Amino acid sequence: MATDKPWGGRFEKPTDELVEAFTASIDTDRHIALDDVRGSRAHAAMLAQVGLLSDADHSAIDRGLDQIRAELEADRFPWNPAHEDVHMNVEVRLRELVGEPASRLHTARSRNDQVGLDARLWARRHLGQVHGALLAVQDALLGQAEAHVDTLLPGYTHLQRGQPVRLAHHLLAYVEMFERDRERVRDAARRMDQSPLGSGALAGTPHPIDRQAVADRLGFAGVTRNSMDATGDRDFMLEAMSAAAISMVHASRLSEEVVLWSSAEFGFLRLDDGFATGSSMMPQKKNPDVAELVRAKSGRVIGDLTALLVTLKGLPLTYNRDLQEDKPPFFDAIRTWRDSLEVTARMIETSTFDRDRMARALDEGFVTATELADWLVTRQVPFREAHAVVGRIVAHCLSASKGLSELSLEELRRFHPAFDADALAWIDPEQAVERRDLPGGPARKQVAARIVEARARLADPERSAWPWASSDAEVGADR
Amino acid sequence: MATDKPWGGRFEKPTDELVEAFTASIDTDRHIALDDVRGSRAHAAMLAQVGLLSDADHSAIDRGLDQIRAELEADRFPWNPAHEDVHMNVEVRLRELVGEPASRLHTARSRNDQVGLDARLWARRHLGQVHGALLAVQDALLGQAEAHVDTLLPGYTHLQRGQPVRLAHHLLAYVEMFERDRERVRDAARRMDQSPLGSGALAGTPHPIDRQAVADRLGFAGVTRNSMDATGDRDFMLEAMSAAAISMVHASRLSEEVVLWSSAEFGFLRLDDGFATGSSMMPQKKNPDVAELVRAKSGRVIGDLTALLVTLKGLPLTYNRDLQEDKPPFFDAIRTWRDSLEVTARMIETSTFDRDRMARALDEGFVTATELADWLVTRQVPFREAHAVVGRIVAHCLSASKGLSELSLEELRRFHPAFDADALAWIDPEQAVERRDLPGGPARKQVAARIVEARARLADPERSAWPWASSDAEVGADR
Amino acid sequence: MATDKPWGGRFEKPTDELVEAFTASIDTDRHIALDDVRGSRAHAAMLAQVGLLSDADHSAIDRGLDQIRAELEADRFPWNPAHEDVHMNVEVRLRELVGEPASRLHTARSRNDQVGLDARLWARRHLGQVHGALLAVQDALLGQAEAHVDTLLPGYTHLQRGQPVRLAHHLLAYVEMFERDRERVRDAARRMDQSPLGSGALAGTPHPIDRQAVADRLGFAGVTRNSMDATGDRDFMLEAMSAAAISMVHASRLSEEVVLWSSAEFGFLRLDDGFATGSSMMPQKKNPDVAELVRAKSGRVIGDLTALLVTLKGLPLTYNRDLQEDKPPFFDAIRTWRDSLEVTARMIETSTFDRDRMARALDEGFVTATELADWLVTRQVPFREAHAVVGRIVAHCLSASKGLSELSLEELRRFHPAFDADALAWIDPEQAVERRDLPGGPARKQVAARIVEARARLADPERSAWPWASSDAEVGADR
Amino acid sequence: MATDKPWGGRFEKPTDELVEAFTASIDTDRHIALDDVRGSRAHAAMLAQVGLLSDADHSAIDRGLDQIRAELEADRFPWNPAHEDVHMNVEVRLRELVGEPASRLHTARSRNDQVGLDARLWARRHLGQVHGALLAVQDALLGQAEAHVDTLLPGYTHLQRGQPVRLAHHLLAYVEMFERDRERVRDAARRMDQSPLGSGALAGTPHPIDRQAVADRLGFAGVTRNSMDATGDRDFMLEAMSAAAISMVHASRLSEEVVLWSSAEFGFLRLDDGFATGSSMMPQKKNPDVAELVRAKSGRVIGDLTALLVTLKGLPLTYNRDLQEDKPPFFDAIRTWRDSLEVTARMIETSTFDRDRMARALDEGFVTATELADWLVTRQVPFREAHAVVGRIVAHCLSASKGLSELSLEELRRFHPAFDADALAWIDPEQAVERRDLPGGPARKQVAARIVEARARLADPERSAWPWASSDAEVGADR
Repeated sequence: MATDKPWGGRFEKPTDELVEAFTASIDTDRHIALDDVRGSRAHAAMLAQVGLLSDADHSAIDRGLDQIRAELEADRFPWNPAHEDVHMNVEVRLRELVGEPASRLHTARSRNDQVGLDARLWARRHLGQVHGALLAVQDALLGQAEAHVDTLLPGYTHLQRGQPVRLAHHLLAYVEMFERDRERVRDAARRMDQSPLGSGALAGTPHPIDRQAVADRLGFAGVTRNSMDATGDRDFMLEAMSAAAISMVHASRLSEEVVLWSSAEFGFLRLDDGFATGSSMMPQKKNPDVAELVRAKSGRVIGDLTALLVTLKGLPLTYNRDLQEDKPPFFDAIRTWRDSLEVTARMIETSTFDRDRMARALDEGFVTATELADWLVTRQVPFREAHAVVGRIVAHCLSASKGLSELSLEELRRFHPAFDADALAWIDPEQAVERRDLPGGPARKQVAARIVEARARLADPERSAWPWASSDAEVGADR
Repeated sequence: MATDKPWGGRFEKPTDELVEAFTASIDTDRHIALDDVRGSRAHAAMLAQVGLLSDADHSAIDRGLDQIRAELEADRFPWNPAHEDVHMNVEVRLRELVGEPASRLHTARSRNDQVGLDARLWARRHLGQVHGALLAVQDALLGQAEAHVDTLLPGYTHLQRGQPVRLAHHLLAYVEMFERDRERVRDAARRMDQSPLGSGALAGTPHPIDRQAVADRLGFAGVTRNSMDATGDRDFMLEAMSAAAISMVHASRLSEEVVLWSSAEFGFLRLDDGFATGSSMMPQKKNPDVAELVRAKSGRVIGDLTALLVTLKGLPLTYNRDLQEDKPPFFDAIRTWRDSLEVTARMIETSTFDRDRMARALDEGFVTATELADWLVTRQVPFREAHAVVGRIVAHCLSASKGLSELSLEELRRFHPAFDADALAWIDPEQAVERRDLPGGPARKQVAARIVEARARLADPERSAWPWASSDAEVGADR
Repeated sequence: MATDKPWGGRFEKPTDELVEAFTASIDTDRHIALDDVRGSRAHAAMLAQVGLLSDADHSAIDRGLDQIRAELEADRFPWNPAHEDVHMNVEVRLRELVGEPASRLHTARSRNDQVGLDARLWARRHLGQVHGALLAVQDALLGQAEAHVDTLLPGYTHLQRGQPVRLAHHLLAYVEMFERDRERVRDAARRMDQSPLGSGALAGTPHPIDRQAVADRLGFAGVTRNSMDATGDRDFMLEAMSAAAISMVHASRLSEEVVLWSSAEFGFLRLDDGFATGSSMMPQKKNPDVAELVRAKSGRVIGDLTALLVTLKGLPLTYNRDLQEDKPPFFDAIRTWRDSLEVTARMIETSTFDRDRMARALDEGFVTATELADWLVTRQVPFREAHAVVGRIVAHCLSASKGLSELSLEELRRFHPAFDADALAWIDPEQAVERRDLPGGPARKQVAARIVEARARLADPERSAWPWASSDAEVGADR
Repeated sequence: MATDKPWGGRFEKPTDELVEAFTASIDTDRHIALDDVRGSRAHAAMLAQVGLLSDADHSAIDRGLDQIRAELEADRFPWNPAHEDVHMNVEVRLRELVGEPASRLHTARSRNDQVGLDARLWARRHLGQVHGALLAVQDALLGQAEAHVDTLLPGYTHLQRGQPVRLAHHLLAYVEMFERDRERVRDAARRMDQSPLGSGALAGTPHPIDRQAVADRLGFAGVTRNSMDATGDRDFMLEAMSAAAISMVHASRLSEEVVLWSSAEFGFLRLDDGFATGSSMMPQKKNPDVAELVRAKSGRVIGDLTALLVTLKGLPLTYNRDLQEDKPPFFDAIRTWRDSLEVTARMIETSTFDRDRMARALDEGFVTATELADWLVTRQVPFREAHAVVGRIVAHCLSASKGLSELSLEELRRFHPAFDADALAWIDPEQAVERRDLPGGPARKQVAARIVEARARLADPERSAWPWASSDAEVGADR
């Protein structure tokens, strides 16, 4: 045996040094070490239970693994890059700690199903953190919405002022987006809720193990149904990363608005000093760096998703070493997502909205032009005609440098004979908003009801508790 | 008014011709024309119901729309590129057919919520087609699995022969992948099951409409909860496209194996002549073009997903014209997915597997080397040590040009004293497979049970009927 | 022979109908028909020249191909989807027109090298169109820059007002970006300037053809150097699409600024009515749809690039059917790029900049705060200290609701004793800009010089003429 | 001043801790520390030269920076995450070392142009390493090609055996691909060969600096032409990453062939033991991990490119904090590319090709079927007809389980009367290859000539020396 690798038997030469460096994955994989230890303890307990491990061996192994866990948590585990990957590092350390029984831990297990298990445990824990961060963002948005039910601003399309809405209504749009994200996270977590352990290298194991027992011990709902699928499957990563990419698009949209709104030109939002930074050259600057970075990181997560899709494309069954390249983009995507949400929550929470600037934006421009058209509709004018009439009125105002509210009834009647005094009242922004009193609309009653519902969803354990929280509690501090 | 556009009132000059061409979307959007008509009919019926449309007008509009539907189905609708988009084309045609009442159809509706509705109707129908195609692929795989429970071949890792498995077991791995895909399709369809109509341009409508009535008529479970979210939301596309990308990765893996297996070197699979093509230069060629194209099209779908994610990144609320660029990648992704699956189903169904070539591949090589190691474990040799022993045996065989089964007991004992006659029987492939008798393993009993379960899932309406099939039946023929 | 395909000899069954539809590529490939005909004429001429084709046959073929060219240009070519691809359609039509000699055209040629040639001809032509569109955008930007050398506005970082610059300087930044794009287009075109014809299916041809003669006739600089590379190479597409993606990012940034600047909040730019559209619901709207669509289409092009990279990943040599999936993303990317640039050029050209709004934005805020710090540096205050002093001044102004220019000397001196009357003059925006009189800076002299240089580059045939324009003239009208 | 940041003047509260962590970039940016120091020394020298820095201050600064360089190289630089980024870390350390003069180094410089410079220096150095690695891969391929001019194997299309070629010819196809990659690297490096220093935060600097002097000192050909472009430009990254993505697609194709060829089924290639790894479960395995990882890493690089394109999409001028997210994907892409190439070079170099297995593959199958058709063409049979005849012959052979070479003349004549004895000799693989004696073809003479040319290109300093090697020598050891 020319190499001390766990597979060196048939090899005559040691691995080339360049190859050692190129194939090493410890820098990334060390982050699943706690999950690996946890999986190994469950595996060992099951081996003992079915008689494949003596009680003495089990007890030694479990003691050793518990010490390794402690070392990892205290950041004093003796990592050795020469030992190829996280599994070997743990196993070698275990041998140092408990001697020969360590060798028996690998019974009925391959690194192929082992790493599949570890990655799922990591994924489940971190999706729990993401889920918590989504709740925090929703809570922050709802907090601001509750404070701004009566703050009006223009709603925009094409970044042009469109129609008046409540700020709470605007913020609730994001609550909806993050609600769908939460559902997707939960769906993804539910779909990955199967233990792959027992799938072996590709074809299971001849040992009489109890797969369900391991699954139960680790808090999985069941076991995977096909060993060849399980050892080559990374769907659970792709699905979570897809949800991440979609959610980061949401975060990028919210960030874009924070950047816009904190510009001198909009001035709708003031960031807390703690959530902005300055310039080393321009002393007057207060920059929305956090929002810019969150917006930018949507690119990072989309890139991660692309990377893994490309990597998996065209691979034959079952395990191929290509799969080692799954964890860098996966870990990066999930962590970036979580961190972006956590900082977004605090940024929103600490921001101040400027009612005056919003009110001024409402006064300028023509945000109630649609109202005027709708008013004509109430007088039996077909909408298309009403729209054209008001378009001409707007053109007139532009050339006369007037706002809609400055027009006299007489002037209005020049454009359509149906106008009467009621039309002038009709175009007050508050009234305009209140007329939109239908489900999903911006009227006070509707917005208030949506806030109450959203709060109720957040308080409902069925929809907002993380089902695996207690299962993963023991390594919950790890990020 | 210098333009005949539905918004021309305030404009002094007509749209530039270059702009007309650049902003036109009819080539893509015509495919939602039937959905648009369907949505308009439901909207009109509701308007009549709440009294916003007279019965006479409603009846005229409905008659006109029905004729338009007929024209579209017969492919004789008079498309006019000058009329900007599908909605205007339908409206202009309706005016030709029924006159003035046509103008009243746009009451309480904007193109922003209208296109959101149409896209969801299109999506729901086509996801139904995809779902059917996934069922067809699973059915084809199960058919071959049922025929090949007793066909053995090497399972591969790293494209190196690993351990013997049943061909049925190998095929069932793909049944699992496509099962997850089906679940994702259903989750996506369920999550988009809300009617956005009534969200208006961004802020709903002042008219007393009944959003739920439209939703009911169109087979939606409910209505969207926030008008600003609904008019700018394309999550339902992103989620479906993510599922498409993941599923196409599955299809690309299956295709890769079809390409490999139909090569002269593997020879495990013979494509039906109808599912292969030749070369215009090399007369002997029989090429797996279908599998190659499916593999390639995974790139197309991943590209489509990327395109839409990028397009949506960083957009402020609510509707921005950028959203018009949603349909080309969305339609392309979903259709490519459906078509790839449909042709894959038939390709698998019509393929012939070559048991002899598979058997020969099992005989050569060392696919039961793991067995020998496992046998030593049954004799209390720690696995790591057993693995090293067998590694040395393999190295010996390679230099002696022998297979494992050609070794004598004496030879074996030179490597480890524990070997006895039982070890020689132990390494028969069939026995090796049968020993792996655990859930998810390749033993006969397990594989048979998985097939029965999979068939049951396919027959279970809860899991395999498409909930919106009857709703979408009227435009079901459209692809 | 159970099929009439050009490769049907060894097949017993016809191609399945589903497969016919799935593998067909005419919808996309018809766009290279003119290139195909052109390549075939050059090939035929060479075959005649080296004696592989009689003069009579050559003359018949050439006549037939010329007629086909005419039919294609007049859009009355009898396309038949049953004939698989563009090459077969042309060949079948040629046989109808000239009979048996048509069969000899395929001598010493395979569809693998033929499609490689056609795609390069298409690419070269269309990159010429892109190059022209880049010149048009630069010309439009330069035109506005020339008109706005003396228009000042705030330069932004983080979308916060930073320092005053000339509008011409701002616009010249984009001239630089598109200059790099032009260089990349030229590099890409130069690198693809080799004829692949003669590479056969993968291994060349045994016939004594003259590859260079065909290359000369088609305006290529040379011939490819390896037949196996040439038949599987799509680098020329990837490189052009990479340049497209980068350039569309530039276009998306310019578009973002058009959207921002035409908002009510910024108000720096007024789009020509011909380059904006309205809303079917909100009569007051004037939306920057063109800019939004260009911005959105950057996603499309990035998606196209991703698609082809994924499709090519992991393919073994040489031709694989996967390569058929090259043209849809390639054609889409190049055309989208060209069209986006053409419309951008006109949009910029027809836009009006609002000097007053820009001037007002300069007055508000603190865009000369850096000046004040720099002034202190001229009085030997270390920059870091000067920056801190001015930071405190800005904080003071903010709480006192004052602008920098409203501060008295006395007030200034409270923050640093070095301040004197000169400091007050120093912070005039015009002076601030003029002090930045270094290469690449915004001072008048510098900006004027850059405009002159840029105009000279555009007029220099070495840098701005398209080297293959005359070669491709015959099919130049095709888009 | 509530914060010790270099921009704290106007802020009342310190940066939130969460924000500190979220916006920190030291983990990534520390890799440009040596470049930062180098740029600072050149900047300081220029400041002294134009009189903005006293000789004493310059001398202190230069001494301090040299010590920092030494600390960085020895990996004992006292990094402090609290100091935001690499620039501040260096500056703070410099102040510790040399006191007050450190503050003067920032004169006439902003972090915006500084980081642009550092990134270009990093890019140039690392592209030099990539370029060297490309040369190494080409050298390795050429070495094997030289050894295998006389080794024949089937050339494949669609992974089906097509026509015989020389192994050298097959390998030379990859030499071509990597040659284009080298050209793209050189083009990218040439296009980024401009110093951005002096562009300031966005608008240059009022100080009378000499930009060209800094550029000269750092080995740049010139200076950037527009300060607003320069501070927001990341084209040089995108262009290099595009070249990386294309090149990694090449590497993935080569890797795919290594994986295929080292399978039991192909058996064309034996990896050196040092370049393969085993399985911890299956003792017989020898896996092509290196090739699999290189293949996989193409996904990583494509993902990185996507990430940066998305991040840059839609950003307004000039610097936005989004740009900080440029370095993680950029560094990752370039390093991954370099490492993948370096290990590929050694893997190819140390591999052994199995002539016997290749010869056997030639004997089986019908790789000279095209020859038979071509032979008929020499007898004036139109190619299409000849192709059909041979197709029928192949079908006959298949049903009779015969190879082409086993057919008698009599049998042949049953399919076409033109066949005579010459046809039998004509289909010998060696003869078939030698007949393809045209530029780019596989005949011995052609292949030998291509090898000589390729070696000459590699030896030509104009084409293969790295122009900036001596400039970057001082930090050349850094990877």
